[in-house]
Amino acid sequence: MQVDLGNALGTTPGLSEGTLDRLDDRVADAHERIAAGRADREFGYASLALPETADPDAIRAAVEPFGRPAAVINVGIGGSALGAATLSNALDSETDAYFLDNVDPEHVADLLADLPLEDAVVNVVSNSGTTAETLANFLVVREAMADAGVDWTERTFVTTGPEGNLRRLAERHDLPALDVPAGVPGRFSALSTVGLACAALQGHDIEAVLAGGRDAMGGLSGSLFETPGYAYGAATYALAERGAATNAVMPYAESLETFAEWFAQLWAESLGKDGVGQTPARALGATDQHSQLQLYRAGPPDKLVTMVRPRERADRAIPETDLEGLSYLGGASLGDLLDAEFEATEASLAAADVPNVRVEVDRVDERSLGELLYGMEAACVLYGELASVETFTQPAVEWGKKAARGLLGGGDFAEAEAVAEKRELLIGE
Amino acid sequence: MQVDLGNALGTTPGLSEGTLDRLDDRVADAHERIAAGRADREFGYASLALPETADPDAIRAAVEPFGRPAAVINVGIGGSALGAATLSNALDSETDAYFLDNVDPEHVADLLADLPLEDAVVNVVSNSGTTAETLANFLVVREAMADAGVDWTERTFVTTGPEGNLRRLAERHDLPALDVPAGVPGRFSALSTVGLACAALQGHDIEAVLAGGRDAMGGLSGSLFETPGYAYGAATYALAERGAATNAVMPYAESLETFAEWFAQLWAESLGKDGVGQTPARALGATDQHSQLQLYRAGPPDKLVTMVRPRERADRAIPETDLEGLSYLGGASLGDLLDAEFEATEASLAAADVPNVRVEVDRVDERSLGELLYGMEAACVLYGELASVETFTQPAVEWGKKAARGLLGGGDFAEAEAVAEKRELLIGE
Repeated sequence: MQVDLGNALGTTPGLSEGTLDRLDDRVADAHERIAAGRADREFGYASLALPETADPDAIRAAVEPFGRPAAVINVGIGGSALGAATLSNALDSETDAYFLDNVDPEHVADLLADLPLEDAVVNVVSNSGTTAETLANFLVVREAMADAGVDWTERTFVTTGPEGNLRRLAERHDLPALDVPAGVPGRFSALSTVGLACAALQGHDIEAVLAGGRDAMGGLSGSLFETPGYAYGAATYALAERGAATNAVMPYAESLETFAEWFAQLWAESLGKDGVGQTPARALGATDQHSQLQLYRAGPPDKLVTMVRPRERADRAIPETDLEGLSYLGGASLGDLLDAEFEATEASLAAADVPNVRVEVDRVDERSLGELLYGMEAACVLYGELASVETFTQPAVEWGKKAARGLLGGGDFAEAEAVAEKRELLIGE
Repeated sequence: MQVDLGNALGTTPGLSEGTLDRLDDRVADAHERIAAGRADREFGYASLALPETADPDAIRAAVEPFGRPAAVINVGIGGSALGAATLSNALDSETDAYFLDNVDPEHVADLLADLPLEDAVVNVVSNSGTTAETLANFLVVREAMADAGVDWTERTFVTTGPEGNLRRLAERHDLPALDVPAGVPGRFSALSTVGLACAALQGHDIEAVLAGGRDAMGGLSGSLFETPGYAYGAATYALAERGAATNAVMPYAESLETFAEWFAQLWAESLGKDGVGQTPARALGATDQHSQLQLYRAGPPDKLVTMVRPRERADRAIPETDLEGLSYLGGASLGDLLDAEFEATEASLAAADVPNVRVEVDRVDERSLGELLYGMEAACVLYGELASVETFTQPAVEWGKKAARGLLGGGDFAEAEAVAEKRELLIGE
């Protein structure tokens, strides 16, 4: 992974080399804190030890009995889906993966009607074992399997914490069970059982994912000038402090579209607290040049654009053409065009004084993905240290969980009563 | 369509009833300007006349010769994709639709390898007929069809302006050709040939889409208190002026996920100029409660959350369970759970003083979609009037187009030279 901060120098908002030099002293201190937390497996910091603590053999052993199914259905939401989905959507496999990460009844029904349930494997993922959306979806999937004459106990495994419903369910029905590692919040769990079980079932090289993470982990040092993840974390922090309220993450690869979703959760839940935090915006190059670029270039000067691309990819030639004014396309390839768009967009943002940071990986494969995910986690943890926020918690989502539970008759919660008091100002019908 | 502004009153940032009353005078003036522009078919404003100017018979006549294919491939980008994709992804059909709206070579190759080209219809959409990504993709698709022994001239139609490459191509090969209506920018073209041809091929009721648009058009009046689209446009404008720099649009329906993409283009390209403009953030309920809600509730007070839902949908019961503490889920349905999450999230934002606006449609069908798309276009045009921006242009994207073209040898452009002068500050490798 390489980070290029050149186009964030002297922009509005922007950095200077002096800013980065001064920041580097704080990076050194933060790195000490991070390294100590990692060594002691402290809550949250333990995430950054996963490349050495995750056990790929245990993951393989749990999924091996299922062979290579036609499909894997990952029933989990938020951090229990996005790491696995990032790997799955980036890498080709003959085993399709589906992510049941919403409780939309029409969507769930359509999916279950289309899936080969008799040759699917279900992975139910919830650390607590009580996540309402996940458990509700699991109950629906289990019933659909039964209705299709499939013994769900033969086609299901769980990924969960040491206690709770899913753990008990696994014990009762003798299901394979993977442990969610201690001290690892969901959004930092891509390089653990939570992110890797699905990849293993799809036949991906999970050891290579972890090796990529280890490369990034081994490269952590006390200087942002030596550590790409820290360079990214320090630069985004400093740009946010100077007015870059929004960070538009724009991979130039369809295979990395879900990576932008994963990043958005990492950034929003970790850093959005105490009235501060940079807002992630999910984008996709080159498509969003025709949707969001006008705003990025000419709207409020409150944006950073993070441009992500693989250096190598399979390519496809553009056929020669006699269409007027388009002969320049013939002889080039789609990859040439995409790269030209990437570099043109970077330069166009720079020309408009909009900060942009380039993040490159060698290619979209297991090893580079491991490096990229780890690098961005390190970036996030560093940003949290610099901003003095509690990176690893998400207290603000509890209110709504209680309210929803109360509304469904799952207990008495004052929050549910507040829902009934909603103020209305209705226009239309 | 109904808009509920109740949860934007007294929040931070927020509105008061006095604010809305004062705004309403400006809405009356803006409506006069809009109505006159619509009547005169002025550039841009002509978009709001589409429910009465679009000709569904011409669309049906162009696609009828193709029957009901297995797949339709829409080759277009930005506004030449998102309207059609919104309808397609919201409505069920036995004809699959694919949107080739990016030039990622791996993605294009994977798609072409999977598609039944012999039973697919290609719709090439570009107003100018020169959009580099679209023409490059078309050349690749045409070659793939030829390689598969398919006569592309029998399986292709174009949607384009009166002149340019695609028009000439259609004439040369006697392809069906639909006209992009005059005066309608791509992002406002969902209710025209551009958005509706694909829907017609998929067997959707395009007359009902237009009827929904007509309902919304007929309801436009000089008061925000009587016009849901204007209520939304005026409220978002006033909230943006008061600090809501970001508008997170969060449909609670998987079928409306692409609607949020469409909205993001509408908002960003129309309003993001002159250093102002509200940044759209695409979200999805309930999924993003586990990803973005922490930030929305506890991050910087610079957000508005737009909560969108259908009032009716097909439902799915959650089976009874003896899982501990989860019996409350049994007897409820996934729809009940999703609605509880919706209302709990609204209330949780209100409790944290974060403005949120509810937008409801009757159900996700052709008529409601037409009403929703038209209503949001009216909202956007009103916002543009109130903000005194040039809603219908997107000048900031030209720089990058020239640079990309220059990089590929398509002419001498100073912008391409600027790309070579990129400043670097590299960390990692």
